[in-house]
Amino acid sequence: MARPAGRHFLQIPGPTNVPDRVLRAIDFPTMDHRGPDFAELGKTVLAGMKRVFRTSADVVIYPASGTGAWEAALVNTLSAGDAVLMYETGQFAALWQKLALRLGLAPEFIPGDWRTGVDPDAIGKRLRDDTQHRIKAVCVVHNETSTGVTSRVPEVRAAIDAAKHPALLMVDTISSLASLDYRHDEWGVDVTVAGSQKGLMLPPGLSFNAISAKALATSATAGLPRAYWNWEEMLASGKTGYFPYTPATNLLYGLREALTMLLDEEGLENVFARHQRHGEATRRAVRAWGLEVLATNPAEYSGALTAVLLPAGQDADRVRKVILERFDMSLGTGLGKLAGKVFRIGHLGDFNDLTLMGTLAGVEMGLQLAGVKIRPAGVQAAMDFLAAPQATAQRAAA
Amino acid sequence: MARPAGRHFLQIPGPTNVPDRVLRAIDFPTMDHRGPDFAELGKTVLAGMKRVFRTSADVVIYPASGTGAWEAALVNTLSAGDAVLMYETGQFAALWQKLALRLGLAPEFIPGDWRTGVDPDAIGKRLRDDTQHRIKAVCVVHNETSTGVTSRVPEVRAAIDAAKHPALLMVDTISSLASLDYRHDEWGVDVTVAGSQKGLMLPPGLSFNAISAKALATSATAGLPRAYWNWEEMLASGKTGYFPYTPATNLLYGLREALTMLLDEEGLENVFARHQRHGEATRRAVRAWGLEVLATNPAEYSGALTAVLLPAGQDADRVRKVILERFDMSLGTGLGKLAGKVFRIGHLGDFNDLTLMGTLAGVEMGLQLAGVKIRPAGVQAAMDFLAAPQATAQRAAA
Amino acid sequence: MARPAGRHFLQIPGPTNVPDRVLRAIDFPTMDHRGPDFAELGKTVLAGMKRVFRTSADVVIYPASGTGAWEAALVNTLSAGDAVLMYETGQFAALWQKLALRLGLAPEFIPGDWRTGVDPDAIGKRLRDDTQHRIKAVCVVHNETSTGVTSRVPEVRAAIDAAKHPALLMVDTISSLASLDYRHDEWGVDVTVAGSQKGLMLPPGLSFNAISAKALATSATAGLPRAYWNWEEMLASGKTGYFPYTPATNLLYGLREALTMLLDEEGLENVFARHQRHGEATRRAVRAWGLEVLATNPAEYSGALTAVLLPAGQDADRVRKVILERFDMSLGTGLGKLAGKVFRIGHLGDFNDLTLMGTLAGVEMGLQLAGVKIRPAGVQAAMDFLAAPQATAQRAAA
Amino acid sequence: MARPAGRHFLQIPGPTNVPDRVLRAIDFPTMDHRGPDFAELGKTVLAGMKRVFRTSADVVIYPASGTGAWEAALVNTLSAGDAVLMYETGQFAALWQKLALRLGLAPEFIPGDWRTGVDPDAIGKRLRDDTQHRIKAVCVVHNETSTGVTSRVPEVRAAIDAAKHPALLMVDTISSLASLDYRHDEWGVDVTVAGSQKGLMLPPGLSFNAISAKALATSATAGLPRAYWNWEEMLASGKTGYFPYTPATNLLYGLREALTMLLDEEGLENVFARHQRHGEATRRAVRAWGLEVLATNPAEYSGALTAVLLPAGQDADRVRKVILERFDMSLGTGLGKLAGKVFRIGHLGDFNDLTLMGTLAGVEMGLQLAGVKIRPAGVQAAMDFLAAPQATAQRAAA
Repeated sequence: MARPAGRHFLQIPGPTNVPDRVLRAIDFPTMDHRGPDFAELGKTVLAGMKRVFRTSADVVIYPASGTGAWEAALVNTLSAGDAVLMYETGQFAALWQKLALRLGLAPEFIPGDWRTGVDPDAIGKRLRDDTQHRIKAVCVVHNETSTGVTSRVPEVRAAIDAAKHPALLMVDTISSLASLDYRHDEWGVDVTVAGSQKGLMLPPGLSFNAISAKALATSATAGLPRAYWNWEEMLASGKTGYFPYTPATNLLYGLREALTMLLDEEGLENVFARHQRHGEATRRAVRAWGLEVLATNPAEYSGALTAVLLPAGQDADRVRKVILERFDMSLGTGLGKLAGKVFRIGHLGDFNDLTLMGTLAGVEMGLQLAGVKIRPAGVQAAMDFLAAPQATAQRAAA
Repeated sequence: MARPAGRHFLQIPGPTNVPDRVLRAIDFPTMDHRGPDFAELGKTVLAGMKRVFRTSADVVIYPASGTGAWEAALVNTLSAGDAVLMYETGQFAALWQKLALRLGLAPEFIPGDWRTGVDPDAIGKRLRDDTQHRIKAVCVVHNETSTGVTSRVPEVRAAIDAAKHPALLMVDTISSLASLDYRHDEWGVDVTVAGSQKGLMLPPGLSFNAISAKALATSATAGLPRAYWNWEEMLASGKTGYFPYTPATNLLYGLREALTMLLDEEGLENVFARHQRHGEATRRAVRAWGLEVLATNPAEYSGALTAVLLPAGQDADRVRKVILERFDMSLGTGLGKLAGKVFRIGHLGDFNDLTLMGTLAGVEMGLQLAGVKIRPAGVQAAMDFLAAPQATAQRAAA
Repeated sequence: MARPAGRHFLQIPGPTNVPDRVLRAIDFPTMDHRGPDFAELGKTVLAGMKRVFRTSADVVIYPASGTGAWEAALVNTLSAGDAVLMYETGQFAALWQKLALRLGLAPEFIPGDWRTGVDPDAIGKRLRDDTQHRIKAVCVVHNETSTGVTSRVPEVRAAIDAAKHPALLMVDTISSLASLDYRHDEWGVDVTVAGSQKGLMLPPGLSFNAISAKALATSATAGLPRAYWNWEEMLASGKTGYFPYTPATNLLYGLREALTMLLDEEGLENVFARHQRHGEATRRAVRAWGLEVLATNPAEYSGALTAVLLPAGQDADRVRKVILERFDMSLGTGLGKLAGKVFRIGHLGDFNDLTLMGTLAGVEMGLQLAGVKIRPAGVQAAMDFLAAPQATAQRAAA
Repeated sequence: MARPAGRHFLQIPGPTNVPDRVLRAIDFPTMDHRGPDFAELGKTVLAGMKRVFRTSADVVIYPASGTGAWEAALVNTLSAGDAVLMYETGQFAALWQKLALRLGLAPEFIPGDWRTGVDPDAIGKRLRDDTQHRIKAVCVVHNETSTGVTSRVPEVRAAIDAAKHPALLMVDTISSLASLDYRHDEWGVDVTVAGSQKGLMLPPGLSFNAISAKALATSATAGLPRAYWNWEEMLASGKTGYFPYTPATNLLYGLREALTMLLDEEGLENVFARHQRHGEATRRAVRAWGLEVLATNPAEYSGALTAVLLPAGQDADRVRKVILERFDMSLGTGLGKLAGKVFRIGHLGDFNDLTLMGTLAGVEMGLQLAGVKIRPAGVQAAMDFLAAPQATAQRAAA
């Protein structure tokens, strides 16, 4: 096949488009991870990550992908057989639950419909019933990457508090951190789990835990075996900017650059506003096509990605294939029980209006080429929104 | 100002978007330009450039931008006071004429309207009148970057032949080579002038002459002083893959990579077809907006760029400024007498359908934000064309 | 402080100097890890790694540093409380033993002197005594990075076989793979542990297990909890070139390039011969200085690094500091009980004669500047060896 | 042939080793050379170049290699048939003279012995004889790259002044600028010619003129035809940070980075001291080998490169070939009448002590392998110098 010209459109909901500056930063010679220059790098990225998590508590960085940070959150705080309360927001919640099972925990999985987020009332009710406090942790996914639904973490926290339950609150922010508003301290989260390859605009290979004092205290008595994921040594080394074992140095170079861009150059508030705008523009396009956004609750719409539900009888993967072959764009597939029923448009990471417009144009044309009956009005609807004066004002204000 | 997120849209008609592979190739350590590895590099890029020019004659590569290759074409073949016939297709034709003047030549400049290409009849007529053969060269711009008009070089050749005039034919292909169909040998061109930063998908800094046997023979007696541009030494060195002085090694690394992509991976025929499609899609957008394409003759429409004429009273540079500030896209300004009247959309180089759609969306939104009255139907018109079955067929055929 | 000019000499025993081609490969846009292009990448690197391990059995690649692959080897094959036999070759053997303890295993640690490798007789004796086969695994470090001693793995295998003991043989090759001769299948190893940042010439962030059929069978009943490290899902996904969770895509780009360089361009036999030559040259320099190579058994000298023992009363870290500040070269520190007593010269990875000579000159000058009494004859001794005709012959033969 | 491992030693006297930071800077997307960001780039590099030239006068930057800047100096200031006084310091002086001939000038070439620099007395004498001031310019090479001899420019200036001669003084600093002390204003130079690929640590492709007010005034009446090299338009555009034609944008990115490193991070005084130290270390090595440094006058020794004279009957190019094949190091060949008689060691650009030691070790071993009778004491002599306390002091002082 002839080489496709131009730039590939990587519009899966992560890994996201890595800025050239970050790629170039990664492309520097590896340094001595025990030397003085490394200490400065280590301290800089840890301090920056605290700002991103909005925490003054501890942060650890693993040379691992996000799944590792899920595992780290559990093995540092829990013991074999511990009950954990999880909520089925979608495929990633299900995978985290499966991982808990593999680690010998006893997850309770509150069923969900894959179109809405965590129900704080259901959490509260279950915790109130747990009078013996057998449940040691509540684990929820902030932004469910398989559905494009953002759960209301502060309300989950409120439900736990209202139930006067001591369970730890653990939150997966793999596809929300540095894209959607998130506040580890203010929201009372005990362990936040994150990865490098989404809002942080890096390749995959780094993952993170932000750790409350309460979670850290719990780890002293937690019984699950752990070594690679052990917070204790990571935190001890981290104080001096070093790691207990060889870190992923070059990805840390990239992280330093990405943090500068996010925190100092664009500003997190602008980053969040941008993602919200792109989410809204995308949803307007979907509705104008006559299709359905998978997320049903406007309070839970995601600024990071939009899952688009196809009419019954249409194969979403066929649409994706047409779009990949014809327009060189990757979209996210339907996962788990959504396989074939939805495709997902990632609009997170280092992204702007015109790339969104290219993306939506590719979807609109691809849907038609794949024979899905739509109104060809989505691109127009998105432009109407993006070019509206209020959008301008919003941007100027930011 | 906050950092603009995402990738800048560089949609001027060159320099064009340089593919990552080419940028990465340039990012390798400079080598010994007298060592054995260099000879291989030199021979490879010279051979590749011959394929791009479609010539079996000589090619030289200058460490210089395109203006240098203009100068080279003239100083190697002409003597002080020589008459050269030029044709005012637009700003770049005017600049080449001005350069000829500075070099002490006597350019005759057939006036043009900046909306059409070279008139072969006018050339033929003037040459027939030149019974004493005082005119030593006919110099035309293949694709006038200031107007988006592509001149019909084979017809110019035919006019010269019909006039039985011995003048050399020199053609500037700076914004056409490797984007639009061009054939140095078949079209009987004596000197073709080209640059790296457009269809060749490189940064600026290299430029080229393709040289017919007739032009080369002429250079033996041409009287203009020359050293840096001297073909003789370049050709002598080039036979072994070397240069008479230090070449721009790292740009040559990039050229090697770009040639592989153009010749071996995409194929020049596909490259040309792609540019034609994008030109047509862009013109349909312009017309749907209710605006005018500057080029008036369909036989001269450019696949490389489209100049868009604004209604009287509108300032094209204000539109460009709005688009740059609001959508982080660079468009080409109106040059010379077109200043403020047109803006130019570059759709050449390493470019694809979705980047074009992002580009056109940015123009459509920007025009509206700048207060230009248009019908918001251009993006839709472009999509209708790009997604049409015949476009598919065309692509498959390619 | 003024910027140090020129290139830093990174002569720690890993991370090693990453070739420009590998760094540039990493510097490409991240791709869709579920798309068709990724499958090809995944299959290519897995196939290449099998050639490096010299195995036809299974290989898994973790987005993790080497410590993770240690953990993976243990958690996939063992159950809580299992006895494992380890041998104290130095700091990394000690760290692996500590990791086994943390995971709830019962390591038996045969004491060593940190100057010699694993004693196969001691292994054999202990296994013969273990008539009830309580020992489930023998874990040894092939090349002890803290001492520069290479253990004789085939003799360990022979000792296990002679004892007719069913324990698995696990070997850490983190600082030997792709530098020193190693043969997973031929040597009867059950789990080989490796990392990216040494002989494989990559930044840290990838690690590996090569897994014998016997080890894989054992994993079916092994009781330690595991998820991230679980072989089962990795192997299932790996068959199609994919990963069960997000892989470290950009490091895999680098791995593909490094494998091409090692396997197809230099050839593993040449790589091994080069490391042996550089080890010998370095030891000759050390002896010419009147200093002692830490390794005492010539059959166990390492081609990857050389630990240099300083005379009593000298602080090796002061020497390292002088060399870093004065000559911008990083050397390895003395680890564990060798702290302050030795420094380590890494001569592994992408490395050649002249960089070795720069390295040895820096050490020779630095020792003198730090006030260590040496004969300034080491550089000369290394040159005598490297330029000797037999060395030439050796190279030509390779 | 198997891939040579490790990093190539590029020790020709330019192009020099380009720092990773500069290469990475070049590896960024090309920008709009008419947009606002470019203006900032243009102004920054012009301002930085003035600091490097130590001038408050005008500087122009050409997208061209050094030969182009030679041509620019001449065509902007002289008229056909003008006499220029040149001095045969070596091959590059001869090439500049040849270039002047080609341009229609009348160079007078004072013969030299290729082992010493410009003789200020000879210049003075000739100028005093030129009572009619027919000589319009004196053109000398500051650091003759073919011989490793640095001419005493201030004494040349003094000789011109003493002769009360109005000729312009033009100086080629292609292999000295940003390596050796040079002062355009203080030394009264009218046109300084420079290139990117030596002390400026860039790939080739940019060249420079620094222009005194007197030279600029002269250009108003100079008669040689010029367009590409025309100062007037370059200076007019340069005031706003732009170029009259497309500049070599990506090389300018590299220049900006290199200027930061040279001016702000290392400091020019440190850069000069470093080059002097490396020159002295190299000459000590040459003498210790029992060979002769080509330069005979200690006041003219070059800190940028050292030409080494081989005993009669030895072929320097054979030595170079042995060193390239055996040690992957490129050295400079003997040029012109020195062909086969000398090789040249470049020790300029981004370079440090240990890379110099690797270089000298490669030369010492290579000489022996090539059968040249030497005392194997050069590397030792260089180390004795580099590690001497006074060298330390010098460095600390810097």
